[in-house]
Amino acid sequence: MPKLSEIGEDELVSRLIQTLPNDRTILTGPGDDCAVVQRPNEHLLLKVDAMVEGVHFLRSAAPALIGRKALARAISDVAAMGGAPKYAMVTLVLPSDLEFSFVLQMYKGMVALAEEFGVSIVGGETTRGPCIMISVTVTGEIVRRITRNGAEAGDVLFVTGLLGGSLQGRHLTFQPRVREAQWLVHNLPPTSMMDISDGLAKDLPRLARASGLDFIVQEDYLPCTPGCTAEQAWSDGEDYELLFTVSPSRAPDMLEAWEQMFPDLSVMPIGKLVKQGEGIPPNFARQGWDHFTQKK
Amino acid sequence: MPKLSEIGEDELVSRLIQTLPNDRTILTGPGDDCAVVQRPNEHLLLKVDAMVEGVHFLRSAAPALIGRKALARAISDVAAMGGAPKYAMVTLVLPSDLEFSFVLQMYKGMVALAEEFGVSIVGGETTRGPCIMISVTVTGEIVRRITRNGAEAGDVLFVTGLLGGSLQGRHLTFQPRVREAQWLVHNLPPTSMMDISDGLAKDLPRLARASGLDFIVQEDYLPCTPGCTAEQAWSDGEDYELLFTVSPSRAPDMLEAWEQMFPDLSVMPIGKLVKQGEGIPPNFARQGWDHFTQKK
Repeated sequence: MPKLSEIGEDELVSRLIQTLPNDRTILTGPGDDCAVVQRPNEHLLLKVDAMVEGVHFLRSAAPALIGRKALARAISDVAAMGGAPKYAMVTLVLPSDLEFSFVLQMYKGMVALAEEFGVSIVGGETTRGPCIMISVTVTGEIVRRITRNGAEAGDVLFVTGLLGGSLQGRHLTFQPRVREAQWLVHNLPPTSMMDISDGLAKDLPRLARASGLDFIVQEDYLPCTPGCTAEQAWSDGEDYELLFTVSPSRAPDMLEAWEQMFPDLSVMPIGKLVKQGEGIPPNFARQGWDHFTQKK
Repeated sequence: MPKLSEIGEDELVSRLIQTLPNDRTILTGPGDDCAVVQRPNEHLLLKVDAMVEGVHFLRSAAPALIGRKALARAISDVAAMGGAPKYAMVTLVLPSDLEFSFVLQMYKGMVALAEEFGVSIVGGETTRGPCIMISVTVTGEIVRRITRNGAEAGDVLFVTGLLGGSLQGRHLTFQPRVREAQWLVHNLPPTSMMDISDGLAKDLPRLARASGLDFIVQEDYLPCTPGCTAEQAWSDGEDYELLFTVSPSRAPDMLEAWEQMFPDLSVMPIGKLVKQGEGIPPNFARQGWDHFTQKK
């Protein structure tokens, strides 16, 4: 059997998921941004996300921003399902020689973001380990669930904000698009949606694959961060912007309403999803970030 | 400010909790075995627990048992609130040089235990890191919530099973006491309950403190694992047995009914909780396991 560095994250996850039994109360299982389960009188969103020192952040970063990022990533996934985040739990693995003040600051950054988004931290776990690791669980509420797999051929692809160059700082300070996603859900809804965490080059194929479609992107339309190339917009990752599809008949009205509602955040039609064989297939080899191979 | 190795886990957690705002939908917040939140038509249990290679297990252990233990610990906490576990999410931090087969086996152990307890694994997160870390989130359902803080002076202290010597193997194969805890809830309920994870010496003071009481233990009554001393029963930890209190008027009937219901699992009255000043105070210095000071 191969080592993890030889098989990559998508293959690992897909193999692990195959071993899981079904349960009819699971409305959306592993593989989307969040799980959705049927509870008495509600659909409950469940999400877990993790960050590891040296992989997702360096100890030289401001501790408050490290804590903030850990929660922001999970909130971004709840947003990507059209949900509102509600409760959080935090696992902290911490080296024994870490300063107490570092942990307090990390927590402070997390609590401040939690308050901003109406999230309550209800529990957690702390334990010793060789480096800092933060795993965050978030539950969320949804009125209408937006998954990755509802798109049809012809649907227009949109991204919010700017892509590329996140590692220069935005990866620590990005704003989860909860308000924008909820607006989309109430006003459209989108036919599919996710957040861009591993880079458009990895995440767009995932979105297309979920609906069994190919994609076409007009590279000139990619909203590149000033100073970034199209290559960086494709591959850098950690953008945490929304990637979503809208039926072509509704796209123009959506664009117009968006500009009025969110004048400070762009939304860009970057291409469309098309039938298999009519565009770039989801096994597209443009580079993106893979956690295990450490390759772009 | 001190380093984590100087302040210990309870102090760290208590300082972090102080920074959290309140929310009236949080019925039980940080500090108990699980959080309990009010949802439409139900009380939802939320729990997160983590294991780190070199701290909670060695890589030489059977991978299936490592995975099993990670989930079993979280299920044990749900049991300790009187709940039934329902959904799980799993964060895996994995070194790139780990064999794929190791991960598959780890997952297999987890999935087998999940099926045994009616738990569905609905999501997860995988990322690279310097050693294996597993963080497990479990949600649970409760009919009646049993917290740590409902005991009164005079209540009898009980423990299930045997204490001490868990590191010789039981820490990997223990059975979470879900069925037993649910039976207690339906037939009594206990006035307070928790599971013993850091050792009676650390966990009993926590239970007493939650109800503002002292405790008295008859050391002769400690149910020591054969070959273990009372000292080991106090301090070894990782027992994952139930520690609970019952009002003295109901204790005899409970004992009799327990023996009929669970002939293969002992339950032992080890002492009682008493008013402050009348027993051993919760700041009792007998040794238990602390994750950060690495001291017993």
